Amino acid sequence: MNAKLPRTGIGIDVHAFASSAESRTLWLAGLEWPGERGLAGHSDGDAVAHAAADALFSASGTGDLGTNFGTDRPEYAGASGITLLSEAARIVRAAGFEIGNVAVQLVGNRPRFTPRRAEAEAVLSAAVGAPVTVSATTSDGLGFTGRGEGIAAVATAVVVEC
Amino acid sequence: MNAKLPRTGIGIDVHAFASSAESRTLWLAGLEWPGERGLAGHSDGDAVAHAAADALFSASGTGDLGTNFGTDRPEYAGASGITLLSEAARIVRAAGFEIGNVAVQLVGNRPRFTPRRAEAEAVLSAAVGAPVTVSATTSDGLGFTGRGEGIAAVATAVVVEC
Amino acid sequence: MNAKLPRTGIGIDVHAFASSAESRTLWLAGLEWPGERGLAGHSDGDAVAHAAADALFSASGTGDLGTNFGTDRPEYAGASGITLLSEAARIVRAAGFEIGNVAVQLVGNRPRFTPRRAEAEAVLSAAVGAPVTVSATTSDGLGFTGRGEGIAAVATAVVVEC
Repeated sequence: MNAKLPRTGIGIDVHAFASSAESRTLWLAGLEWPGERGLAGHSDGDAVAHAAADALFSASGTGDLGTNFGTDRPEYAGASGITLLSEAARIVRAAGFEIGNVAVQLVGNRPRFTPRRAEAEAVLSAAVGAPVTVSATTSDGLGFTGRGEGIAAVATAVVVEC
Repeated sequence: MNAKLPRTGIGIDVHAFASSAESRTLWLAGLEWPGERGLAGHSDGDAVAHAAADALFSASGTGDLGTNFGTDRPEYAGASGITLLSEAARIVRAAGFEIGNVAVQLVGNRPRFTPRRAEAEAVLSAAVGAPVTVSATTSDGLGFTGRGEGIAAVATAVVVEC
Repeated sequence: MNAKLPRTGIGIDVHAFASSAESRTLWLAGLEWPGERGLAGHSDGDAVAHAAADALFSASGTGDLGTNFGTDRPEYAGASGITLLSEAARIVRAAGFEIGNVAVQLVGNRPRFTPRRAEAEAVLSAAVGAPVTVSATTSDGLGFTGRGEGIAAVATAVVVEC
């Protein structure tokens, strides 16, 4: 097999919205979204950043969020999604790969993403050091995203061994 | 970062089936499907063509269906999925990218896709000017696709900066 | 169009868990999982291996599981997922492609995948003759995977024409 062939990766992250009583802030795609219902979970729930990081790990065979940042790595407890994404890019490069790009598709009813897309892509691209694009869509009222129970993010990435 | 590294993109499109009272024609993967229940929505509901177009935009960082063909671009109102896909490929090339291919996975109970796959791939590949493949599967009776409420299409694409 | 541009593929496979009365063995990612509830279906239900094979077919335009191993190819009846994946890689290379890699994301509550990930990746990579990575996540209790009705696997692959 040719070590110089490009490799692709995939990452999926799903988070339920927090119950309103929890009044968590929404963090998504590296941005804070004032007034939007937050996502549940021990982390900041940034499904876009998490899916992007997992796609980079997946492409390069360097594990996943759990093996790199899990409970046996307490220094990452409470780290933001953007911090984990930046660290993921560093790990992937340290393993000998260049990063082509990361592309993320967000599926959910909320928040309205398009007005802040350029801002999100700038923050995420800076964290990765390569182009990161994010698109958003709804699931036309169908499934758990259509019922507003949570959001899903699906990411792909390309890396090439140096 | 190396401008010549390949870039990947992802696009997801979900459409609910129209209520039978609406008796819409099904358009999917660039083909008309006589006798099949149509998909709801303002567009022709061609989830395969839409997901393919969004994957091309996602890979190249040129926006999405909404920013390129949305309500502020009235000349695209009512345009078919295949027209939008063809135009997406033109936009991506005009932005300085070559297109490697587009691959789409359709998830749904209907229509029976395999007998017309070659025909669909020929129409879609002609629209993009690069290979487009389409596979179809069911979700084994699970979720909204399994209940026959709608269909989902997930597309990936590769582009390379010229 | 440039024949040497990389091509990406996508494959999705969903399987419902078998009813407990069926007491099927779980086969997933090329491994047997003693004590875990099996997946329903005529095949061994190895959604990871099936999605990986479909991603390779999708990238190279060589059909899908049904056209290559379906009912008109009785020699594959009852073949394991890993056998089909190995055969898919052979078909893709015979069609003139090199394989960059395959990346799979498994979504489901069960089994606990991480402890056996290295083992699974070794078996799958040997079958393909190129790196295969597998990550696992839950859908945070949402949707059919969150309710434990079944599992989903989403795979991407990269191939390059020789």
